Amino acid sequence: MPSEALRTAHPELDAHYCGPLLRIESHIIRCHRQIEAWFRAQWLKHPAPFYASVDLRNAGFKLAPVDTNLFPAGFNNLNHIFDPVMVQAIQAAVEHSCPEAKDILIIPERHTRNLFYLESLAALVAFVEMAGFGVRIGSLEPITEPVNFDLPSGRTLTQHPICRVGKRIEVDGFSPCTILLNNDLSGGRLEILDDLEQTVIPPIELGWWKRSKFEHFSIYQDLTRELCATIDLDPWYLSPLMRDCGHIDFLKREGETCLQSQVQELLAEIQAKYDEHQIKEKPFVVIKADAGTYGMGVMTAQSADDVTQLNRKQRTRMSASKEGLGIDRVLIQEGVHSFEKVSIHQDDDRYVAEPVIYMVDHFVVGGFYRVHTEKGVNESLNSPGAAFVPLPFNEACSLPSPDSSPDSERNRLYVYGVVARLALLAAAYEYQMIREADAATEQMAGDVA
Amino acid sequence: MPSEALRTAHPELDAHYCGPLLRIESHIIRCHRQIEAWFRAQWLKHPAPFYASVDLRNAGFKLAPVDTNLFPAGFNNLNHIFDPVMVQAIQAAVEHSCPEAKDILIIPERHTRNLFYLESLAALVAFVEMAGFGVRIGSLEPITEPVNFDLPSGRTLTQHPICRVGKRIEVDGFSPCTILLNNDLSGGRLEILDDLEQTVIPPIELGWWKRSKFEHFSIYQDLTRELCATIDLDPWYLSPLMRDCGHIDFLKREGETCLQSQVQELLAEIQAKYDEHQIKEKPFVVIKADAGTYGMGVMTAQSADDVTQLNRKQRTRMSASKEGLGIDRVLIQEGVHSFEKVSIHQDDDRYVAEPVIYMVDHFVVGGFYRVHTEKGVNESLNSPGAAFVPLPFNEACSLPSPDSSPDSERNRLYVYGVVARLALLAAAYEYQMIREADAATEQMAGDVA
Repeated sequence: MPSEALRTAHPELDAHYCGPLLRIESHIIRCHRQIEAWFRAQWLKHPAPFYASVDLRNAGFKLAPVDTNLFPAGFNNLNHIFDPVMVQAIQAAVEHSCPEAKDILIIPERHTRNLFYLESLAALVAFVEMAGFGVRIGSLEPITEPVNFDLPSGRTLTQHPICRVGKRIEVDGFSPCTILLNNDLSGGRLEILDDLEQTVIPPIELGWWKRSKFEHFSIYQDLTRELCATIDLDPWYLSPLMRDCGHIDFLKREGETCLQSQVQELLAEIQAKYDEHQIKEKPFVVIKADAGTYGMGVMTAQSADDVTQLNRKQRTRMSASKEGLGIDRVLIQEGVHSFEKVSIHQDDDRYVAEPVIYMVDHFVVGGFYRVHTEKGVNESLNSPGAAFVPLPFNEACSLPSPDSSPDSERNRLYVYGVVARLALLAAAYEYQMIREADAATEQMAGDVA
Repeated sequence: MPSEALRTAHPELDAHYCGPLLRIESHIIRCHRQIEAWFRAQWLKHPAPFYASVDLRNAGFKLAPVDTNLFPAGFNNLNHIFDPVMVQAIQAAVEHSCPEAKDILIIPERHTRNLFYLESLAALVAFVEMAGFGVRIGSLEPITEPVNFDLPSGRTLTQHPICRVGKRIEVDGFSPCTILLNNDLSGGRLEILDDLEQTVIPPIELGWWKRSKFEHFSIYQDLTRELCATIDLDPWYLSPLMRDCGHIDFLKREGETCLQSQVQELLAEIQAKYDEHQIKEKPFVVIKADAGTYGMGVMTAQSADDVTQLNRKQRTRMSASKEGLGIDRVLIQEGVHSFEKVSIHQDDDRYVAEPVIYMVDHFVVGGFYRVHTEKGVNESLNSPGAAFVPLPFNEACSLPSPDSSPDSERNRLYVYGVVARLALLAAAYEYQMIREADAATEQMAGDVA
């Protein structure tokens, strides 16, 4: 990333909606002590997952998360000014999850031809090494010898064949007690990871084979309601409204009537909120696969007709997610406009952007703007052609500055960090619920036997 | 601190001694994974004190700590680029020592007229607030109303009268569960801190009324020996030789013969090490009060005669430390030259400098160079007239970069961080020993009763 980009990342909001956002931000900054105390109490009871990235959308009158990735990529897009914070957070996170760890085996995604992903992986390896751990990468591909990748950044990455030896995974005699998963398990659970005596972080239960976006955002809504009650803020400012619709099959047009009516109801609910807050925008909803990521299986709708009038190609597109995982359930979520604009190069035009915030343990460790030159304020930016601009130089999300303007980089980023951490906390609750459900299932199985 | 200073802080070593240092540094950087693994295992068993600053001296052929302050001041001299690291470390530290804390009461030193100290205190308050805690300062001075200080930096600091209510300390109804001590208790333990139900961090046992520099450096020597054995390095490179001499009274000339012979022996021991490593410098020793700080009660000697030929004034100076605390024991320590030079302003001459490294919990959170325009390579710089230059911009001690030169800022600072953390770890052991000794005393008292 050229250093020019670093200097121009200061985002610009459409002046029209600055007013409400400044009010929301000011309120959050003023309440930062209550907010931090609330988070501290939460983390004590609900430890944060190892890492996460959260996509936010800033509509000015509203700021909300739209995706929470618990196996993040994009580490190569972070501003190096955050390196010390990242390294310190990794040390704290490993201390929390596996205090005796000396070495770490990383198991990445399979797509070895995606240079962006490989650069992210190389950056992740470098961070973990800087934190003082020995690192190897174990490949899930059917390779029999180590494979080297020379990356555009000049880094070299080596992926090793992994093998299962009893209850352990090894690469080339390297058998550390900790396995760091950077694979979101969209394709289902992996047999090789079952029943290991090594610690897998994050746990495989947080993969997309098990998670549900609807569950995640339900918890997020509850938590936002709780936090907002303590600081006296309308939770709608931070939380998208949503609907769920049970089983769906876009190709067979099953569940279409339900989808149609839910979209209609949700649009009406959003319109009511817009009226309440005198917002003149046109409401829209985003329909997305309940599990999975990568911006696949996502569509927007401004009316119920948009759902019924899908053509064959659009239906096919809505039927499959990453790694061919079928879509049989969708989340219908309030669309949040992005009125934030960032230029990719200095003196360049500004384009629609959404902040992506990174966390390790419960610490904010950086982020970037996802910028798209060809997308509008009400479209998903997580699609081919997106560019990445690191968060502004010399600032960090963890530090509010009550004496500065809420519009200052520092304070805007603090507020982003609050919303991103709320989503992270929702994931922590999610994990707890998944475990409790699994335990109940086992209990039932035991009772039947 | 003007931004010019930030850009010129890159230290320069006398070329003569660069060679040996580069070898030591390269070795440490190469071994950074073993070193980090060793530290991790240590911190698990011996939690770090809340905060510390460590004065280092870099002779090129040797790099060693000369003072470990567990109630540090100087927070105003840190480079703001480290702010996020500092805030994150404070959050982790409070989590470790008092996870439920929402507010923190700081009890500072008494010297309310020292603007440097008050600026440091204001910076500390700002850090703790940024970490999300409510903060008040409780004064040990006999004040009855809050006193405001307007500082040169533009900050305002308010000190409140403290009162003891049962087993708690309060200021103006503010009675948090955590008291952060920024007073090194040189003057002895404070009755108001005895038998509190609130958590005092760091514990009062780490004050100078209880600590001994000789104990500290004995533990430091042991730990350095242990770490150096794992990475195959002569521990002398990181550790000053030393002697102790029991009771001493400079005014009454008690203990003088012992002091003289110990100085002589220590000088001979240093000379032998110099010969072994072909070092042409003249050995010297530093004699310093076994308890206390602030650069008081410190003298250097190049021969035993330097000790016997002290005049009345010099003897008086060696008899009293900070807050009039008498000196009845001294540490005789190998003097470490400082061949490191730093300029105070851009394009200015370079002067003798020593790095001071700050830690919170077991994390390195910044530091500065203490620079003195009027002192030589073998003199204490901790004296009036010292200036402070923040550590170089855009770098952090926690991150080694094995691909860069050991002479790079990043790697030099990593090495400083290793030595500083060794001293911090020694303090962690010290606390454990003090507690064990206290428990044994209580046990004996119990047995007698």
